[in-house]
Amino acid sequence: MVNDTTLDAILNRLDQGLEAALNRLVAFLRIPSISTDPAHAGDVRRAAEWLRDELAGIGFDATVRDTPGHPMVIARSQPGGARPLLFYGHYDVQPVDPLSLWDRPPFEPVIEDTPAGRVIRARGASDDKGQLMTFVEAFRAWRDIHGELPPDLILLLEGEEESGSPSLQPFLRENAAELRASLAMICDTELFANARPAIVTQLRGLVGEEVIIRAADRDLHSGMFGGLAANPITVLAQALAALKDDAGRVTLPGFYDGVDEPPADLRRDWESLGFEAAEVLGRVGLSHPVGERGRMPLEMVWNRPTAEINGISGGYTGDGFKTVLPAEARAKVSFRLTGRQEPDSIRAAFRDHVRGFLPPDCTVEFHEHGGSPASVMDTSDPAFAAVRKALGDEWGQEAAFIGSGGSIPIAGDFKTILGMDSVLVGFARDDDRIHSPNEKYDVDSFAKGARSWARILAALR
Amino acid sequence: MVNDTTLDAILNRLDQGLEAALNRLVAFLRIPSISTDPAHAGDVRRAAEWLRDELAGIGFDATVRDTPGHPMVIARSQPGGARPLLFYGHYDVQPVDPLSLWDRPPFEPVIEDTPAGRVIRARGASDDKGQLMTFVEAFRAWRDIHGELPPDLILLLEGEEESGSPSLQPFLRENAAELRASLAMICDTELFANARPAIVTQLRGLVGEEVIIRAADRDLHSGMFGGLAANPITVLAQALAALKDDAGRVTLPGFYDGVDEPPADLRRDWESLGFEAAEVLGRVGLSHPVGERGRMPLEMVWNRPTAEINGISGGYTGDGFKTVLPAEARAKVSFRLTGRQEPDSIRAAFRDHVRGFLPPDCTVEFHEHGGSPASVMDTSDPAFAAVRKALGDEWGQEAAFIGSGGSIPIAGDFKTILGMDSVLVGFARDDDRIHSPNEKYDVDSFAKGARSWARILAALR
Repeated sequence: MVNDTTLDAILNRLDQGLEAALNRLVAFLRIPSISTDPAHAGDVRRAAEWLRDELAGIGFDATVRDTPGHPMVIARSQPGGARPLLFYGHYDVQPVDPLSLWDRPPFEPVIEDTPAGRVIRARGASDDKGQLMTFVEAFRAWRDIHGELPPDLILLLEGEEESGSPSLQPFLRENAAELRASLAMICDTELFANARPAIVTQLRGLVGEEVIIRAADRDLHSGMFGGLAANPITVLAQALAALKDDAGRVTLPGFYDGVDEPPADLRRDWESLGFEAAEVLGRVGLSHPVGERGRMPLEMVWNRPTAEINGISGGYTGDGFKTVLPAEARAKVSFRLTGRQEPDSIRAAFRDHVRGFLPPDCTVEFHEHGGSPASVMDTSDPAFAAVRKALGDEWGQEAAFIGSGGSIPIAGDFKTILGMDSVLVGFARDDDRIHSPNEKYDVDSFAKGARSWARILAALR
Repeated sequence: MVNDTTLDAILNRLDQGLEAALNRLVAFLRIPSISTDPAHAGDVRRAAEWLRDELAGIGFDATVRDTPGHPMVIARSQPGGARPLLFYGHYDVQPVDPLSLWDRPPFEPVIEDTPAGRVIRARGASDDKGQLMTFVEAFRAWRDIHGELPPDLILLLEGEEESGSPSLQPFLRENAAELRASLAMICDTELFANARPAIVTQLRGLVGEEVIIRAADRDLHSGMFGGLAANPITVLAQALAALKDDAGRVTLPGFYDGVDEPPADLRRDWESLGFEAAEVLGRVGLSHPVGERGRMPLEMVWNRPTAEINGISGGYTGDGFKTVLPAEARAKVSFRLTGRQEPDSIRAAFRDHVRGFLPPDCTVEFHEHGGSPASVMDTSDPAFAAVRKALGDEWGQEAAFIGSGGSIPIAGDFKTILGMDSVLVGFARDDDRIHSPNEKYDVDSFAKGARSWARILAALR
């Protein structure tokens, strides 16, 4: 346990060093580390090397470790006999399309004054480069005051989070002895509304599927074959349209097996959070929740599974018109899972569903894009209470235990492969436009995020 | 009426000049006159100018005439007191995507020996540059033998047929006095099976629509909004999937109003044509007709209306996966019309249908891409019998009166705007891969096509 005077010195050090820290973040954001696009593989590696050099510079034993995909950055502080903590973040980012909707180039970061305060605008500012740099800056300030890093830290920084993390599970298995800690600290989540800090204690899982339906061996003229030949776009539309019924429920047989209702106390907590769907939707130009009828909106996002079509293409999509019957049509579909839903079962049910719509002349091909179950943390570990208090001290409001509609499969992997729970703390805001054009991160999130980690370290070290 | 000796001389002239004629066609095919793509506007004009120069070279009074879109080529032969005939073809071509499926560049024509004979392979070889050059070469041979062109010919060569012909109707109205003839000769259709010549006496109409459904004002993260926010791809898929019922019938209210059954004698002719759906579908890798149950396959394509999705796009469609809820989704949809179906009514019914699927948070935008009713010719004009005989003399089989599933709106426009019927004669084959990669035209179609026009001219001049 660090004494208050030392903590104050660390917090003061962070405040004094904010502009320098922002400059480091800007340099990091300039690297277009889009992991899902093979053309950016070199940039992803460059981001890993940038991190390694930063971490080595403040005293970590830091290495870039190759995988069959993008590399991992692993760093360790000196041993000290403390309860080992593993810190996780990811240095890869989402694609930027449609580029035309960005107000400025996504990899030329700028710090802007806005009516709501200063923000850093760039792809990855919030998800997740800005977030992971909050703990890195906390470690730096600690080192500056103490003369050495907090002991017994392990950092695992991933470069494939936005592309399904194909290398993660094998890497965890192969390096389990080196990576196993008593608890993981994951920084990839949000504050709750009105800057209330939050600890995510449950996350939805994810199943990603790509489906390709093919009919004729070439594109056909709809005048010569329309009404006679199978149209794969029609088949695909029919299969996808039937994924949900009129009440918003997913129609796959067995889909809701293992979906748990929240415990009464957690439901009461959620009801007390004052979440207004109209307000959240209003910020993106919407007003009506479309999920299952009879569910409160927070529950729809945190505790109900769903099916969404993330992309679709087929036939002529350029300017003008082309009366073609295309040879194939494609869609990317994802399922968000809750409770004890099994990814493999959901995937199999989806594939059976699509096959049920195929006329005799059509074939279907499926590609798997990741699968992970939902995660539910055991909050009886005293570290949860300690983190909750540290966050409350920094932000002036008690931290909420919340759910997350997003999937951070790493939390499930840490549990199943390394046997440890995760404390999910982050400082993103729901207007950060992550995965969208004009992504930003508040300077206040960045500064108070780093201060929060300093307080958490002081409580746990 | 031309005597047999003169006709023989013209036919002989065509045979002797075949290689030179092929070289002219190759030069024409090198021009990538893709009318639907604004980037190719200069190429479309270049094709018009190439035609003007060719026609002027054989004695036509030929001009390139500007329109708000791509230009028209108009050419006239000298007056001679004969029944005026208007010849129509189009010099624009379809787009070439997907380019990767072409065996060679689509605008580098090559004459290939195949097991079925010599073919000219290039985009537009069959549709419609090769076809329109058959009558141009017939005029040239006539001029070579007679010393002057056949009298009282008007040529109208269009550059927007593959992009909905937006300028055509205004142009016909503004130039009606100049263009009105007793009959139009349109060369943009096919031989029937086994090289049996055919005259198309009815064509399906076409309604083209583009639909754009929008929800949020930005792309959303499906983890944060999935299950809560409207997904425009889902809405679009639901609206499009519901366009047809399980029996293959289009579900729009009133859709079948004005759809006529074929007269008994025409139906008997069609039944006698020996059309095997399995054989035609087999050539493109299919085997099962998917149209309305209980209709014979020829009827599905010639005399039944249909709805087809020609293109669809939305969300992330690149490599990898992106868990996005997109802000919008788009589709291009076309309807093939028969009998007395009204394009405006079909368009309105489609728009109402889509609006019926919109949840409160979604908006829809429609773009019109052409609309024309079906055309049914009056075959009592003796020219039909004369053309039928001339074709029979050249091909050794009686010409069939057939329908066409494709839309050639010009035939309807000639009727409604210029008051004349059309004789639709063409020499394409159903394996020409028009609108698809590796389009070709048989050298035999080209050579015997030009000879057919020489015989038709001899009968009508």
